[in-house]
Amino acid sequence: MRIVVDVMGGDHGCGVVIEGVKRALEADAKITELYLVGNQEAIQAALSACQLQDARVRTVHATEVMNMEDKPTDAVRKKKDCSMARAMDLVAEGRADAVISLGNTGGMLAAATFKLRRLPGVERAGIATVIPAPDNEFVLIDAGANTECKPIHLVQYAVMGSVYSREILGYKTPRVGILSNGTEEGKGTDLTRETYKLCKQLDLNFIGYAEGHDLFANKVDVVVCDGFVGNIVLKTCESLAFGIVSMLKRELSRNLKNKLGAFLAQDALRALKRRMDPEGSGGAPLLGLNGIVVKAHGSARERAIMKAILTTTEAVQHQISQVIAQEIANATLRLAAVPTQLPTPIPA
Amino acid sequence: MRIVVDVMGGDHGCGVVIEGVKRALEADAKITELYLVGNQEAIQAALSACQLQDARVRTVHATEVMNMEDKPTDAVRKKKDCSMARAMDLVAEGRADAVISLGNTGGMLAAATFKLRRLPGVERAGIATVIPAPDNEFVLIDAGANTECKPIHLVQYAVMGSVYSREILGYKTPRVGILSNGTEEGKGTDLTRETYKLCKQLDLNFIGYAEGHDLFANKVDVVVCDGFVGNIVLKTCESLAFGIVSMLKRELSRNLKNKLGAFLAQDALRALKRRMDPEGSGGAPLLGLNGIVVKAHGSARERAIMKAILTTTEAVQHQISQVIAQEIANATLRLAAVPTQLPTPIPA
Repeated sequence: MRIVVDVMGGDHGCGVVIEGVKRALEADAKITELYLVGNQEAIQAALSACQLQDARVRTVHATEVMNMEDKPTDAVRKKKDCSMARAMDLVAEGRADAVISLGNTGGMLAAATFKLRRLPGVERAGIATVIPAPDNEFVLIDAGANTECKPIHLVQYAVMGSVYSREILGYKTPRVGILSNGTEEGKGTDLTRETYKLCKQLDLNFIGYAEGHDLFANKVDVVVCDGFVGNIVLKTCESLAFGIVSMLKRELSRNLKNKLGAFLAQDALRALKRRMDPEGSGGAPLLGLNGIVVKAHGSARERAIMKAILTTTEAVQHQISQVIAQEIANATLRLAAVPTQLPTPIPA
Repeated sequence: MRIVVDVMGGDHGCGVVIEGVKRALEADAKITELYLVGNQEAIQAALSACQLQDARVRTVHATEVMNMEDKPTDAVRKKKDCSMARAMDLVAEGRADAVISLGNTGGMLAAATFKLRRLPGVERAGIATVIPAPDNEFVLIDAGANTECKPIHLVQYAVMGSVYSREILGYKTPRVGILSNGTEEGKGTDLTRETYKLCKQLDLNFIGYAEGHDLFANKVDVVVCDGFVGNIVLKTCESLAFGIVSMLKRELSRNLKNKLGAFLAQDALRALKRRMDPEGSGGAPLLGLNGIVVKAHGSARERAIMKAILTTTEAVQHQISQVIAQEIANATLRLAAVPTQLPTPIPA
């Protein structure tokens, strides 16, 4: 399979990205071509520095970079030769199967939607993030692509998240829940209540509402929400996990006895840290597009880049886009049979 | 001061609540009268069991209990003699200054709004929860009272949360932020953008948007959001903290070396657990009401009950309701000077 990596736009420069590419090429023989898109000079320097010589590597020069400060839709129009757009072009032209980028999420979404288009029937692309919990891993969708959602968007996120959990994470019948402020059917907002009604009609393992308490308690495998809530939940979890680790470090270095304890238990502490590492999951796919697009964390380092590439090859192998297109078509058929009903207004 | 405790409705029965009351009475001489409201027989049994004999204790019999299953507004109408309603009556009649309950949050809000009424100018009461972070404690408001908010509700939450942070937590000029999916002014939803504009007009230390990453990074002291998002954030944090502790426990018991390390570092681990304990903060006040009302966790045990009572006496001493009424009046005046502007619709 043919993978494109946009090497620009990461926090640590393109050398780190290319080192990650090197590891992925060593680990995954299924990769037949790997395109590095970005500043040619920087790429060549990084290739020499990490001594990457692999016949599968191709380079594509791009004169511009989409920055974190760029307004997504403007940048897509104005920075026509940015690495992210050039990377998408390779998939759009059928020369590659999938793109990985560390850049601006909004820009990536705009470029992907513009260049690749959405899958037939899909109304909005969504970002799926895999979050590790003690006894399972759950998919949070949408983690920030689509701030103001309609019920049909959430319904399609439920379908796409379920496909991803099943095909990539290996949950046979993933438990799909709508994130809400309680588990009773009457809870939530107009948006969640309408989504709830629609999801009941689908061929999903739909468990109804999931509340915050359910997330890390092995009760739900796909957590469906709008991109506003999803972005807040994702970043709050990252912030709290980081906060707990710093509190723990501080407590463990308070005196000699604690320090000795920490030294003896260092394997356990490292295992915990590794498990909670937001980079461990290897990138968040943008689902619903005509092609596979994976967003790696801007701060991703070698290992995270490698994992993002391996996640991407998995997605290609499982033909995620085709499966999503099929299941979205099925869902659309099922919903067409349901009489449309406007949500009941809630008295103020 | 005169405090009312609704002893029914907690997960562990009224004995645990009354044990917590005993500790609070021992710790706080400012309490002059303490009303226990609930089933008289159960109260007497618990008083004997924990040998609480204190001249400040009064008991008030109530024949009913509001359950977790009760629909709040129905229960307020139908269960006229439930302990929660009777407890509110004591404040409404001027016989007491504040109420603490462990029961159904929605029911508590309904009973308090019905019996005590909102403070003049306050449009919706909000639940303020204090969340511990490594280097500060922040107030999350609204944590679940008001699911569908208008901008003026969030603006008033900003004012009330700021008062609470200043008067009770001791932050001189609390940093107030609106929870959003990014810190740039253009982010968020119609609701948050309109709230942003209004908050800029007020006499607050308003820092604009706070995103999830800011919450545990000592960047914000008052996090303002609607009750839907707030409830999800609060419960997600509780769930993740609990999940991390269980992962840590599991790792630490994996082999003898880790176990020994954990034994040596037990002070540090306990300190971490104590710091993250959702009960440690001692109850969440319902702000904006004509009287002080504090919600303790349904699962609260003795120590948490005691802390909730001490938080309540602090709130009474600082005349929180009067300060809020004053600052809401000031905010209303300032906003009246601002030309009304409808939020710009966002193209789909």
